[in-house]
Amino acid sequence: MQFANIITLTTDFGLKDPYVGQLKGAILKYNISARIIDICHSIPAHDILTAAVTIRTSYNYFPKGTIHLVIVDPGVGSQRRILAATAGKHLFIAPDNGALSLLFKDNMIQTVHRVENASLFPSEISSTFHGRDIMAPIAAAVAGGMSLDKVGPAAKIISCTHLNLPEPVISETAIKGQVLHVDRFGNIRTNITTADLSKFQPASFSGIRIKGHTVSNISNTYSDSPSGSLVAVIDSAGYLEIAVNRGSAARLTECCIGDPLVVLMEGS
Amino acid sequence: MQFANIITLTTDFGLKDPYVGQLKGAILKYNISARIIDICHSIPAHDILTAAVTIRTSYNYFPKGTIHLVIVDPGVGSQRRILAATAGKHLFIAPDNGALSLLFKDNMIQTVHRVENASLFPSEISSTFHGRDIMAPIAAAVAGGMSLDKVGPAAKIISCTHLNLPEPVISETAIKGQVLHVDRFGNIRTNITTADLSKFQPASFSGIRIKGHTVSNISNTYSDSPSGSLVAVIDSAGYLEIAVNRGSAARLTECCIGDPLVVLMEGS
Amino acid sequence: MQFANIITLTTDFGLKDPYVGQLKGAILKYNISARIIDICHSIPAHDILTAAVTIRTSYNYFPKGTIHLVIVDPGVGSQRRILAATAGKHLFIAPDNGALSLLFKDNMIQTVHRVENASLFPSEISSTFHGRDIMAPIAAAVAGGMSLDKVGPAAKIISCTHLNLPEPVISETAIKGQVLHVDRFGNIRTNITTADLSKFQPASFSGIRIKGHTVSNISNTYSDSPSGSLVAVIDSAGYLEIAVNRGSAARLTECCIGDPLVVLMEGS
Repeated sequence: MQFANIITLTTDFGLKDPYVGQLKGAILKYNISARIIDICHSIPAHDILTAAVTIRTSYNYFPKGTIHLVIVDPGVGSQRRILAATAGKHLFIAPDNGALSLLFKDNMIQTVHRVENASLFPSEISSTFHGRDIMAPIAAAVAGGMSLDKVGPAAKIISCTHLNLPEPVISETAIKGQVLHVDRFGNIRTNITTADLSKFQPASFSGIRIKGHTVSNISNTYSDSPSGSLVAVIDSAGYLEIAVNRGSAARLTECCIGDPLVVLMEGS
Repeated sequence: MQFANIITLTTDFGLKDPYVGQLKGAILKYNISARIIDICHSIPAHDILTAAVTIRTSYNYFPKGTIHLVIVDPGVGSQRRILAATAGKHLFIAPDNGALSLLFKDNMIQTVHRVENASLFPSEISSTFHGRDIMAPIAAAVAGGMSLDKVGPAAKIISCTHLNLPEPVISETAIKGQVLHVDRFGNIRTNITTADLSKFQPASFSGIRIKGHTVSNISNTYSDSPSGSLVAVIDSAGYLEIAVNRGSAARLTECCIGDPLVVLMEGS
Repeated sequence: MQFANIITLTTDFGLKDPYVGQLKGAILKYNISARIIDICHSIPAHDILTAAVTIRTSYNYFPKGTIHLVIVDPGVGSQRRILAATAGKHLFIAPDNGALSLLFKDNMIQTVHRVENASLFPSEISSTFHGRDIMAPIAAAVAGGMSLDKVGPAAKIISCTHLNLPEPVISETAIKGQVLHVDRFGNIRTNITTADLSKFQPASFSGIRIKGHTVSNISNTYSDSPSGSLVAVIDSAGYLEIAVNRGSAARLTECCIGDPLVVLMEGS
């Protein structure tokens, strides 16, 4: 399989330090024509689950053939493996710590290789920055046309680390979910998906309760609700989202990651 | 008219979420060789006026032929139109909500098309992210050489949304303005321009009053004032700016967006 | 010498204002095929020393031929010079205010030119933004193939501004250093290097004291210490770093930039 010369970055490096810049330099050093696109560098430090959600909900907006580096790596320098996994003609390079969990869970991963071909690494490898010293040159080499087989030996999917994502609990009269993410606008992304909702007749929907507030409809768009009031929509990745038209739902409901919400369904 | 394969981004998406990354992916998916440059993603959420000021004071530093996406879109999903407007061989794609107001006000806009050619959109359009699902593919297609006529039908300039910008009030003895923006350095950008000042003889200038402080000269550069003291300069976009040499004018004057200032002129 | 068409940016402009975008536009206006890579825009405002540390510890991860713009410029508009200096087939363009101090100190700079060829500048130069109006077009021209001689006359290295970096004090029984930087993870970078440590026998190392805490070993990797406890490592740039495995050393020790630390050595 041939990959495009495009590499995306999803990390917890933040933007106050030069780590992202160094990572990009290391890619260009091995492949001067590589094109590098930032997905997000604001993953909370060491938060593998947020990295897993981010890459799962974002990779598919990129062209087939894109190579995605996912570097949230609290175990850097230890014996944890580094993986190069393919899904739908995308390649993902990440520590084997669960960062690719949602791709595994949704049965998207097709092949996995261990990143072990030391001939591609620089002569000095920092024990605290494998993203720059191991993952970057590997991504650069594959983006430049190197066969995936040369990355290292194949690995079994079952041998890879899978994180447990908090799953909604579905009963006959309700879906109990929780808050997965609060974005810059104060929009609340939940772990309830259109697939969960479609297990009920639309007519049976009878409201959403979150932190003492009730939302009585699932709308098509934020503007279906008066300015300043709560609205539920299906977000751009297919998850149930609670928002406030021209305002912040997180501020209005005082809601945080992990808080519960319930979608009420009349017995159907 | 032929455009360059360069697309700039001005949004209120922030950098903590993956929205900017998804937007870039959507551009590359339609035009894999497009070059994407960030102007700013830190426009305050839903702040159309700041977006309008940002694109007005920044676009002209880019090469002719550049395509500018301006996505501050609180009405996303509603019936508000999306515009593709040309000015001085630049193309601007934005919701019709006032984001291009200052370009209209300064009579820079030459043509406007409505973005309506659904054959360019992906099969699924999120009602909460038209930047990614409508504006990105359109920008990508035009950057890749598609004729502007294919974007959608022409629109009348007069039919487009114009925001009212707070204008300075000029009398015989004073210019009363207000604070438009406070930058990272604490420099205070006002809405008073060199054009406003040039309505008076330079000799008639007799000081600037802001929040109880007085600045007695307009200097050429920050360093014309002692370290730590207030200085007025004409900023890099032609606006009167109040600064502190090697310090923060906003902190010294406790000044915020919207606060008034007065340029005093002796009767001339 | 021929340079690559890659330009990196290290500035104190932050990301809330459009200055970085305008700078990139100005580069592309003079050289539409230039590739621009951000190293860091979060240098604290006017903090020349942090800029000097950042470029010194980052440039070498980029390919030879890269051009580095380093723009922390509190004296903008004054008579301070602008330099174009070469080191190891990299080019650095910066105000002559100490931003290149560590490259001078480590005897890496080979040639220096003054940036004075006004024929390369735009017709209007803002006195508050020489990065955009002077440094960007010069970098763009050299990246596009212009000979370095055309930038301006050669300058003597000894005539350039050198900042004093706080140096560790080495006695027979201790290295007294200080905290240079605290990164996003709360990792504490000190000014003590492997070169300083190598002046002692490894066996003589008998602990590190920082803010009342003791670290008893220098480890290979964060994971050599239990989760939540202090660990000392050599960081990815060769400096002694104090960290907490999966936590924040800065929070645990309540440590700030400038705080002292001591590496204890048994008399050897």
